[in-house]
Amino acid sequence: MAERTGVLVDAQAGPGVLHQLTGVIARHQGDIASVDILENRQSGSRLYLEIDLPGSAAALVEELRALPVVRSLDVVSTFQAVYGKRIIIMGGGAQVGQVAIGAISEADRHNIRGERISVDTIPLVGERPLADAVRAVTRLPRARVLVLAGALMGGDIEKAVREVRAQGLIVISLNMAGSVPEAADLVVSDPVQAGVMAVMATANTAAFRVDLLKRRVF
Amino acid sequence: MAERTGVLVDAQAGPGVLHQLTGVIARHQGDIASVDILENRQSGSRLYLEIDLPGSAAALVEELRALPVVRSLDVVSTFQAVYGKRIIIMGGGAQVGQVAIGAISEADRHNIRGERISVDTIPLVGERPLADAVRAVTRLPRARVLVLAGALMGGDIEKAVREVRAQGLIVISLNMAGSVPEAADLVVSDPVQAGVMAVMATANTAAFRVDLLKRRVF
Repeated sequence: MAERTGVLVDAQAGPGVLHQLTGVIARHQGDIASVDILENRQSGSRLYLEIDLPGSAAALVEELRALPVVRSLDVVSTFQAVYGKRIIIMGGGAQVGQVAIGAISEADRHNIRGERISVDTIPLVGERPLADAVRAVTRLPRARVLVLAGALMGGDIEKAVREVRAQGLIVISLNMAGSVPEAADLVVSDPVQAGVMAVMATANTAAFRVDLLKRRVF
Repeated sequence: MAERTGVLVDAQAGPGVLHQLTGVIARHQGDIASVDILENRQSGSRLYLEIDLPGSAAALVEELRALPVVRSLDVVSTFQAVYGKRIIIMGGGAQVGQVAIGAISEADRHNIRGERISVDTIPLVGERPLADAVRAVTRLPRARVLVLAGALMGGDIEKAVREVRAQGLIVISLNMAGSVPEAADLVVSDPVQAGVMAVMATANTAAFRVDLLKRRVF
């Protein structure tokens, strides 16, 4: 498998910088996994790139550093190495908080044994904002499991749940009113346990697979 | 100010796709804020881009769609619109969980009034992993405040805190052993209040500015 390399680039400002960087990367057969423009001012821009390379990064790094627009370049740890896989929790504040307690405690136990799992949350209200946020999870890098924490969710949120599951995301729902529980992989009544199960479904250090469970409702 | 546009692109696979997309974007004077490669298989690749444009996105979208490598393209809400600003909490599981409870409850109150604030966490142990994770926060898109939740942090973590503060990040530390509290903007003894204050420091709907406080330790 290709090696993933993280590089932090300090460059001159303006449109076209990324086009020059990607030109060099394409010549080295590099596949770009992600790019973030961290700063973009008159005085200069700071970019972070993650690149999958068939071989060593040394030659690519040297050629990128030699570009006239590049002022400096550091090789850094990738987000996968630092923050790892992501559990996403969304819904009402009170319940999101309780799911987070369970997920963070469980992630702690696995991260101590060498895993890297992050727990990311957003409290939101309303069918439209929640449905949008559910659909956007499939665009979030490194997201593995979504937990929906609330007392009533249905309508377009249910449709969004079915769409993201079809794209490979695992969805856990609290046992709540509305049609979302029917659409989820797993329905859990205790919010702390929902968080724990979300992490167990993600961790390589846990023997727990949602598709092997004999029950769907807990 | 330039308008930020999110586009989801379904394209043919392989190195060089991004180079072609960025070429078109540069010709339209677009500044790329971020790019994520969501899928990259033999059968094709799926990319998400956020682009700042001086004018309307329509002409750019049309030209991108006309590229032979592009199979389909959707205009979608940006991550800023969906998930908003980010509070990052890291440290020991028990304490990260309590800070998260405070931050999520407080973010809920502001998000109901039109804010968008996410609360992202990672439980981690050890000086080196924590120092790396602190430094990486400045590379995370939309991160505004970092909360360090633990009972003992110092050494290289303290150095990392000073570095990220110099880059504009607000750092809140629990009242703990080690040198990290000395290096932080704010030291808070109650973890729930630390989470609440982290969100208040970020929300436009709150009248709370860390630089205007008359005390640094609570």
